[in-house]
Amino acid sequence: MKYGLIGASGRLGKEVANVFAEHKHELVFTFDLDGEKLEKEPGLLIDCSLPEVFEKSVNYVKQFKVPFIIATTGLSDENIKSLQLLAKQKPVIQSYNFSLGIQILLRLTKEASDKLPDWDVEISETHHRFKKDKPSGTAKMLQEIFEDKKVNTSSLRLGNVSGDHSVSFAGLGEILSINHRALSRRTFAEGILKSAEFALIKDKGFYSFMDVVFGNE
Amino acid sequence: MKYGLIGASGRLGKEVANVFAEHKHELVFTFDLDGEKLEKEPGLLIDCSLPEVFEKSVNYVKQFKVPFIIATTGLSDENIKSLQLLAKQKPVIQSYNFSLGIQILLRLTKEASDKLPDWDVEISETHHRFKKDKPSGTAKMLQEIFEDKKVNTSSLRLGNVSGDHSVSFAGLGEILSINHRALSRRTFAEGILKSAEFALIKDKGFYSFMDVVFGNE
Amino acid sequence: MKYGLIGASGRLGKEVANVFAEHKHELVFTFDLDGEKLEKEPGLLIDCSLPEVFEKSVNYVKQFKVPFIIATTGLSDENIKSLQLLAKQKPVIQSYNFSLGIQILLRLTKEASDKLPDWDVEISETHHRFKKDKPSGTAKMLQEIFEDKKVNTSSLRLGNVSGDHSVSFAGLGEILSINHRALSRRTFAEGILKSAEFALIKDKGFYSFMDVVFGNE
Amino acid sequence: MKYGLIGASGRLGKEVANVFAEHKHELVFTFDLDGEKLEKEPGLLIDCSLPEVFEKSVNYVKQFKVPFIIATTGLSDENIKSLQLLAKQKPVIQSYNFSLGIQILLRLTKEASDKLPDWDVEISETHHRFKKDKPSGTAKMLQEIFEDKKVNTSSLRLGNVSGDHSVSFAGLGEILSINHRALSRRTFAEGILKSAEFALIKDKGFYSFMDVVFGNE
Repeated sequence: MKYGLIGASGRLGKEVANVFAEHKHELVFTFDLDGEKLEKEPGLLIDCSLPEVFEKSVNYVKQFKVPFIIATTGLSDENIKSLQLLAKQKPVIQSYNFSLGIQILLRLTKEASDKLPDWDVEISETHHRFKKDKPSGTAKMLQEIFEDKKVNTSSLRLGNVSGDHSVSFAGLGEILSINHRALSRRTFAEGILKSAEFALIKDKGFYSFMDVVFGNE
Repeated sequence: MKYGLIGASGRLGKEVANVFAEHKHELVFTFDLDGEKLEKEPGLLIDCSLPEVFEKSVNYVKQFKVPFIIATTGLSDENIKSLQLLAKQKPVIQSYNFSLGIQILLRLTKEASDKLPDWDVEISETHHRFKKDKPSGTAKMLQEIFEDKKVNTSSLRLGNVSGDHSVSFAGLGEILSINHRALSRRTFAEGILKSAEFALIKDKGFYSFMDVVFGNE
Repeated sequence: MKYGLIGASGRLGKEVANVFAEHKHELVFTFDLDGEKLEKEPGLLIDCSLPEVFEKSVNYVKQFKVPFIIATTGLSDENIKSLQLLAKQKPVIQSYNFSLGIQILLRLTKEASDKLPDWDVEISETHHRFKKDKPSGTAKMLQEIFEDKKVNTSSLRLGNVSGDHSVSFAGLGEILSINHRALSRRTFAEGILKSAEFALIKDKGFYSFMDVVFGNE
Repeated sequence: MKYGLIGASGRLGKEVANVFAEHKHELVFTFDLDGEKLEKEPGLLIDCSLPEVFEKSVNYVKQFKVPFIIATTGLSDENIKSLQLLAKQKPVIQSYNFSLGIQILLRLTKEASDKLPDWDVEISETHHRFKKDKPSGTAKMLQEIFEDKKVNTSSLRLGNVSGDHSVSFAGLGEILSINHRALSRRTFAEGILKSAEFALIKDKGFYSFMDVVFGNE
């Protein structure tokens, strides 16, 4: 495929470019700190940048009229509404985390929360020192599972940790915890590739990475 | 509820009495080393004693005609058959492990193993230094989930740890692990309370603690 | 050894009596809510009671002329001065925390902080849901090790956890963490035993539990 | 500093070049598969290559008359003797493991083992699924700290884990554990940088990385 990449010079952007290159996909458009570079019309757009760039990204999607995969974290409710509007024309896949293990983490957390409604809950996440938003997007997804219940969330910043997430449930006499640890950023790039392949066979619609992984159920 | 407790003076019996008292349930009948004490007719019977008392317990159930929860370990096949007979009249809940968290651990492990068939798996358990058998019974239950797949299992012996169990799944780029840590015997008393509440809304039948936890599915 | 115990019927007092009995030490004098019981002259006195009893305890120490170990919390400056006076005659060991592991945690944290001045640091503590102050006193002691450096500290509240503490150091490529987990009150009784053994080989002087653990350096 | 790098195009060599560049050190000489490149006289030489290149490296050190840091593994006794000879003129730092965190892990483990001689000990290590030897070399170094005491060691193999090591000590009432987790090869490059800074302030002598980390004691 010919694809465009917003945030191409960022850490995740670079990893995406590597993984897509290994699969012979052609990077034909980029937008990052070095500005805009357009070689050919892209058939799909990927955004691995920051919320500040969101409006710009939406305009590119409208301009190229292509499927859109957005991995940007910290989106506002308004941003999500914009994406849902775009999804009426083309497939839009939005997730704060494109790792398979994270999807299982979310799934198991949902199941445990259903079975242990009265237990204490704590969410904890550890990321590299360069990550500025707290808590992480994935931690927010975990929080949302508990709906009305406000769940205390601890954010640790250590070295270049790719991303650890933990949910602990406790009754008075026992603790059950579910933990996920990303070993490299490549995990996410592979999930984005999987999503891109999914988007190309869809007509339109607003999807999560959960749909990409468990869509055939 | 008004309930009766067989083995009331034992370690688990005392814990059960505490937890039930906290929930305003009234202990109206006991049978233990100090003999029989009947204040009022119980609406439910719990047995936290030893197999030697089994016949006596069965007679009490027949006498009071109430739901029965039995946590006694080391029952014979014949004992189980007796329980199944009782279950034709009233609910009977039998389990060797009334820890809710362990049931969830087993369930989530099964689900993860279904979703991640190609991932590496490691089981690990830590118990107090006095525990001689390796691996623990719960670790064996975890192993059985993987059927044909032989799963490496590490056993650690440290201090007076009540019991930690962990199952880790790993793809090349990420690790998902599910951990359980028993903090005290109270765990089991809480499981028995949950079972009692379950028994009171059932008509009759032979149930495991698994049914109590996941029964409404 | 033959020893006396003030506050023998309290929760910590009972634990101390158990641990000392396991080591064949003979309890020959007690003072608690049941009054005074003197079987033989004690060779050492331990106080696990309350500040209200302090004067009484000091009088016993003067009467028996023996080493003194005091675990009472909430002592006044005046109380400490009284202890320092006693220490001119016999060894006196005073601490608000007789957990050996916590002392080692503090010590190893100090050493790691000296060797890894540029690394990221995170402190984390988990306690039972009933603990209202955040962060824990031990977490504050850990923070103080880093002096000017403000260290992010996460506080988790789960079930009836006795107390977990963790300090993590991270360079860009690695993480070193030191963790402590209290399993029971017994910890403190063992620290008092260690202090008693230390006191018996000293002539006189005012010591902390830190001196007991690291005193031969 | 102006420095030279032997094995500059290797995996570790590249990482070293990155880390040194971040600290504004200037790479002025390289020798690797592309041959020799000399821009300026180096003030220090680093060897991240293979034993086959050893003689060549020694000649460069003699030519430039500079401090030497060698991370090459599999050196012979004769090689070590050559290094000791060089060390009579200039500082030479040799180690098979330039991870700072691992050195601290070893040191803290030694200290804890001295202070907690009666506690239970467990060693645990996790590495990528491709690692065939059990236990890891670092786990063996940890075992050696306990001398006569045989310490149970668990080896887990999961995904592409770079290397986790853990030592746990337990008294009956508490657990103290020290854990190390390698996040990337960068760790070793940072250790080499630290060694370079150490070498520049020394006159001459043969040092290990342990000396670099703990040398001022």
